[in-house]
Amino acid sequence: MSSLSELKALYKKHEKKLFSDYCDLLRIPSISSNPKHAADVRRAGRWVFDYLQKGGFDVEMWETPNYPVVFASWLEAGPSKPTLLLYGHYDVQPEDPLEEWLSPPFEPTVRDGIMYARGAQDNKGQLIYTLYACRALLERDGKLPINLKILIEGEEESKSIGLGKIVHSKKKELAADSFIIVDWDIPNLEQPAITLGARGLLALTVELTGSRTDLHSGSHGGIVINPNHALISILAKLHDEEGKVTVPEFYDDVQMPTQEELSLLSLEIDEANYKKQFGAAMTGGENNYTPGQSSRLRPTLEINGITGGYGGPGVKTVIPAKAHAKISCRLVPGQNPKKILADLKQYLNALCPKGLEMTIVDYGAAPAVRSSPTLPQAKAVAKAYGEVFKKPCTYSLGGGSVPITAELAQVCGSPAIFMGVGLPDDDIHAPNEHFGLDRLELGFLTLARVLEILGE
Amino acid sequence: MSSLSELKALYKKHEKKLFSDYCDLLRIPSISSNPKHAADVRRAGRWVFDYLQKGGFDVEMWETPNYPVVFASWLEAGPSKPTLLLYGHYDVQPEDPLEEWLSPPFEPTVRDGIMYARGAQDNKGQLIYTLYACRALLERDGKLPINLKILIEGEEESKSIGLGKIVHSKKKELAADSFIIVDWDIPNLEQPAITLGARGLLALTVELTGSRTDLHSGSHGGIVINPNHALISILAKLHDEEGKVTVPEFYDDVQMPTQEELSLLSLEIDEANYKKQFGAAMTGGENNYTPGQSSRLRPTLEINGITGGYGGPGVKTVIPAKAHAKISCRLVPGQNPKKILADLKQYLNALCPKGLEMTIVDYGAAPAVRSSPTLPQAKAVAKAYGEVFKKPCTYSLGGGSVPITAELAQVCGSPAIFMGVGLPDDDIHAPNEHFGLDRLELGFLTLARVLEILGE
Repeated sequence: MSSLSELKALYKKHEKKLFSDYCDLLRIPSISSNPKHAADVRRAGRWVFDYLQKGGFDVEMWETPNYPVVFASWLEAGPSKPTLLLYGHYDVQPEDPLEEWLSPPFEPTVRDGIMYARGAQDNKGQLIYTLYACRALLERDGKLPINLKILIEGEEESKSIGLGKIVHSKKKELAADSFIIVDWDIPNLEQPAITLGARGLLALTVELTGSRTDLHSGSHGGIVINPNHALISILAKLHDEEGKVTVPEFYDDVQMPTQEELSLLSLEIDEANYKKQFGAAMTGGENNYTPGQSSRLRPTLEINGITGGYGGPGVKTVIPAKAHAKISCRLVPGQNPKKILADLKQYLNALCPKGLEMTIVDYGAAPAVRSSPTLPQAKAVAKAYGEVFKKPCTYSLGGGSVPITAELAQVCGSPAIFMGVGLPDDDIHAPNEHFGLDRLELGFLTLARVLEILGE
Repeated sequence: MSSLSELKALYKKHEKKLFSDYCDLLRIPSISSNPKHAADVRRAGRWVFDYLQKGGFDVEMWETPNYPVVFASWLEAGPSKPTLLLYGHYDVQPEDPLEEWLSPPFEPTVRDGIMYARGAQDNKGQLIYTLYACRALLERDGKLPINLKILIEGEEESKSIGLGKIVHSKKKELAADSFIIVDWDIPNLEQPAITLGARGLLALTVELTGSRTDLHSGSHGGIVINPNHALISILAKLHDEEGKVTVPEFYDDVQMPTQEELSLLSLEIDEANYKKQFGAAMTGGENNYTPGQSSRLRPTLEINGITGGYGGPGVKTVIPAKAHAKISCRLVPGQNPKKILADLKQYLNALCPKGLEMTIVDYGAAPAVRSSPTLPQAKAVAKAYGEVFKKPCTYSLGGGSVPITAELAQVCGSPAIFMGVGLPDDDIHAPNEHFGLDRLELGFLTLARVLEILGE
């Protein structure tokens, strides 16, 4: 076990090379959703494989029907020491809209001590300090304080389809006492927090067809049902006046946290600060729940996209042949994703008016996860955050989803917790994604301390 | 006055040159909505100017802030003869989607006796037989049976903005006893019909803004109001369960035709034929009105476009910063377009939920027109149709709009009627617009007979 100052010295020793490796990794446009970048995605995976192999880990490249998964392990701490599974990913989101970037997304650029690039935070920034912390400890001591498994996939931004296909065949390899996903935020640098859960997710597209081609609204207005009208009328029925989702039985199995669990969680959102950060009012969600509760403890249904007819400048008096909407639900513990998906489809179908055809395509459904702050890894992370940030660690829940989490936790045998040193305004998934360089050190120190504390 | 056989001989004499001029005119891509084609639009106007001037008409080119209007007249029939104003246009719709054309839109191509080109019908086909009929009669007889004024504008497909700006300064020039717009359909070749009216039009864009940038639906779902949801909820309130528009006072001033007027009108639409032509069911419109009544006698509100958030393949779990809709209303006699526009804006504003900003941009409003079948020009056209088609003429109303009509009728001093030999399936405004070459003769004969009958 090392003191924080010893770990700081270790970071200093590696800082230059870490920065240069970070830049190399950021230059690879490993966009998993764009087949054009298939070779780049594989190149990023190969980079992670090589880095860990050179550092003394046993590394395997697990092929999947899509992109490979890097699996590294060091299991020589002996049976008296616990085994930890760490998860991260080497792929990134698409870069568009390109014109809004102030510097090219795959040309790492530092301005005022902040790195700007696609993946700067999500997940290459968090990945680089994780890999460096693990390898630096092993190099320095010739051993690690615990048995360690590292799983780095290449499709987190594309629903983890490849990993999902092979995960159940890797039960033995992935078995661990603790499971940590290093791909998350803390509320701010004054308030480190462990995220104990994430919401589940389901998504679908619903399309309505009214005619063979677009029709002139003068000649046909009053004769046909405009698919835009029908879509709007259907979608407007998905929420009631109280902000509640109207899909039958949607809330029936929702498990709310106990009072004791609630008392541990930080769910407050500062309204003025939120308005300043996002330019938005906190007037959504269900009545009788605070915005923090609505967005963390309660399921939601959002219409992510609506498209029908003319969207250009000026006027085009058309009745479109088709209209469609993208719908997703965030789910909470207790809700069965497959049941909710089936209920939603049935509900939509029942709302379709006569004279139009409805087509629904779904993109699968994943359950929510929620873990206890009494897990060993949660205690270890809490202690590490406290030491490194010199502030007491709090607990939160994520509103978002890492859809593979529940399956991974089941295969691994341990519930997941989420850690990281991301901040809510790092603009991940958006133009000018960024990550303060100071956070590379904070992440390195925290991760190294977590390994040490778990080995105590 | 000539017999129909004399007029047929006159057409035969000119047929070859008419066809070659028709092709020349079709080759000019006079797309008024695309500034790239400004020179082409002017070239088409100049072509019309030259054609009429060579034929012995007094021709003026009226400049406007946009494209010029060609005004030709021959007024030597004397005060005992009536004066007729004819209206047409030399501009065309854009050609897109280009890839759906079977032959290039500006390369006139005849297949099976049918001309395929942008403008083949709307309005260059109808224009060429109109110009030829007028000039041929004047050349043959050295005079016309009536005083004639011809107004051919270059922005009918772009809301007649230029003509709208100068029309009120041309009261003296445009004064006439009768007014005919030669830019319309008949139901089919077995059923000639005069169109006695067209609906008015207003259009606007409504935009809702919720946040500065798009938000992640996991982190923010439950906190903010999704602009898609708000837009949907607002738009769904614009119609009630009976298919009626809910804007206050929307129907208050609607003037329905008298029973006598109704008995003259053909408003039936064959359901099986409609399904075959457009692939659509006739299940729209207001309850208690037939599709024919809803689309011709009643005002409508159509949502021509909805756009908000993600519309691409797969999933993007976004809460969009903005959502917008394009809305237009078709208006009927009695309704005041400015009042309806103001009422609609006020209604939309009142429906905007707290926490979102609403912006409305309107594109003006034009009233409906509806004329009597007892007008001299209506009687003359009815007689001419009857002679040429050898079928009794019927009467119909248009669902669409020629927004400048009401202003022109006011300045001219005569109500408008609509004639032409277009057919509903000529694919005007669409790829592969076409016009049977047999209709050039039918149009020529009808127009020539109208001039003669009015001079009797």
